[in-house]
Amino acid sequence: MQLTAPLDMHLHLRDGEMLENIAKSSAHTFSGAIIMPNLVPPVSTKEEVVAYKERIMKAVGDETFTPYMTLFFKPSYDKSFLESVKDEITAIKLYPAGITTNSEGGVSGFDVEELRPALTAMAELNIPLCVHGETNGFVMDREAEFVSIYEKLATAFPKLKIIMEHITTKESVQALDKYENLYATITLHHLLITLDDVAGGMLQPHLFCKPIAKRPEDRSALLKVALEAHPKVMFGSDSAPHPRHAKEACGCAAGVFTAPIALQVLAELFEKENASLENLQAFVSDNAHRIYAVTPPKKTIILEKRSFKVPSDYNGVVPMYADEEIAYSIKEVQK
Amino acid sequence: MQLTAPLDMHLHLRDGEMLENIAKSSAHTFSGAIIMPNLVPPVSTKEEVVAYKERIMKAVGDETFTPYMTLFFKPSYDKSFLESVKDEITAIKLYPAGITTNSEGGVSGFDVEELRPALTAMAELNIPLCVHGETNGFVMDREAEFVSIYEKLATAFPKLKIIMEHITTKESVQALDKYENLYATITLHHLLITLDDVAGGMLQPHLFCKPIAKRPEDRSALLKVALEAHPKVMFGSDSAPHPRHAKEACGCAAGVFTAPIALQVLAELFEKENASLENLQAFVSDNAHRIYAVTPPKKTIILEKRSFKVPSDYNGVVPMYADEEIAYSIKEVQK
Repeated sequence: MQLTAPLDMHLHLRDGEMLENIAKSSAHTFSGAIIMPNLVPPVSTKEEVVAYKERIMKAVGDETFTPYMTLFFKPSYDKSFLESVKDEITAIKLYPAGITTNSEGGVSGFDVEELRPALTAMAELNIPLCVHGETNGFVMDREAEFVSIYEKLATAFPKLKIIMEHITTKESVQALDKYENLYATITLHHLLITLDDVAGGMLQPHLFCKPIAKRPEDRSALLKVALEAHPKVMFGSDSAPHPRHAKEACGCAAGVFTAPIALQVLAELFEKENASLENLQAFVSDNAHRIYAVTPPKKTIILEKRSFKVPSDYNGVVPMYADEEIAYSIKEVQK
Repeated sequence: MQLTAPLDMHLHLRDGEMLENIAKSSAHTFSGAIIMPNLVPPVSTKEEVVAYKERIMKAVGDETFTPYMTLFFKPSYDKSFLESVKDEITAIKLYPAGITTNSEGGVSGFDVEELRPALTAMAELNIPLCVHGETNGFVMDREAEFVSIYEKLATAFPKLKIIMEHITTKESVQALDKYENLYATITLHHLLITLDDVAGGMLQPHLFCKPIAKRPEDRSALLKVALEAHPKVMFGSDSAPHPRHAKEACGCAAGVFTAPIALQVLAELFEKENASLENLQAFVSDNAHRIYAVTPPKKTIILEKRSFKVPSDYNGVVPMYADEEIAYSIKEVQK
């Protein structure tokens, strides 16, 4: 089985030592990734984005992986700023204030008029807006409640490409087909787990993420559009490393680390669900090429059905399926 | 403020070193408690229940606390066995198989005919049946799904007193008023938290329990019947100690340890919600006296409104509100 130029359209590479430790995990099997800007402080100037990209390229050490850079959205971004930074970025990521790791400087309230200058300029410059779509409501309702904000933004800014990031609910899936300018990324783990896997037996901190995994009917809705390679849906791992001590602690941080095993587990899932390799190729690559109009480096990943024991950690970061067997292995990467 | 003969109608005292470490926490402020039988192996013979009671009394070292003993329900219990053990127990606890800590030997399926001999004998001998009411379904639905089993049992065995233990949902609250022979216990933590507190911010293992905390509207329904001291509702802490390492780990065990702070926090909650001291007295004592027809040792707990900093642990067990301030303190215990 082979996949051409896979893309991870939602990735946390962090910075400093963590970046050094985990960047190659993604670069090995992906041609590129949308890099989230929620560092401390968040990436919000041209200088910061350029410098962060350089640090990523240094950590990756491989020209066959392109980090598609993003800025941390601020309503104060104006057209001249956006024009000046346009060539350095692929998208801008909007976080509601305080909703997840390092999002304190995000947007509070979603007043269309306050957002109009920045979002209109983004639409004119064809810069997609990636959104972490959760309200501050009850944890199981946050994303479904946010759908009305997606609808408000999609209606007010019809020329703006809006990516609903890491969707986890049937409500978000339904919104996809209602608004031409709404797109979505879906993670690996939200195709596989529900809240049952996080808190139904023993509590599993390594499966704790934001948005939290939802109900079985939500997972079914996500699976359906992923397996059929719905043309507005892209793979985005939201792979989010934390050191082991930050996960296995009282007050565990949110994030599931899937980068090193994502393609292998997707291959297993698509096979198990009788979905075609064509659809897997579209879900992990072609849809993103088209939606983002990117041309990633050529890279071919050859997978084989051979059991692989997932390591207990990658440089101190515990991956999903740590110490478990998965059915597919990476046989070869052709660059 | 004073409370007379408080009772904790659902308590885990464990065994061995843990029993020694935590038994006094309950005995200090409660006149008695229904003691759960889910040891390894579960308490299921007369000899075991007598021996366990002796170990508890030794650990407590105080005649002003009565452990109301229970057996671990087995469908094979027959009338002659129940007659022989009747004087040693106050109730029998039914666990669905595998539903919580040490419940592997519980009931699978709820076939009325299979249960009829044991439950008919219990009704005749006036032994209440305490039930952990959860199915093996999706974690947020397990208790609501179990309501139909409560209804089936309540209908098939109208003379059997059935206690819905540690209820967490509005569906269970509604069932209370539909069947004369259904009663309920409610924990402290389910009056205070929802899933948001467990998994809405960082993951909080010390608030992880079974049944898991539910939605805001569920908590409201529980609060209503607790604050009004609904005559069929009793306080049962489900205080369930685990050593710190079992809670702050990958695969955290379920249980919240509230015994040492339960009365103080209930006093604060009832005051904050403008409920009367009379209702608090009924909720933590009088309702249980009447429902179970027990006469616990005389004990008066005098509480005062004075801030108390909850210790970070009690002999290695982390309590709810560890290191936080609560508004009420125990001033004096009169025996």
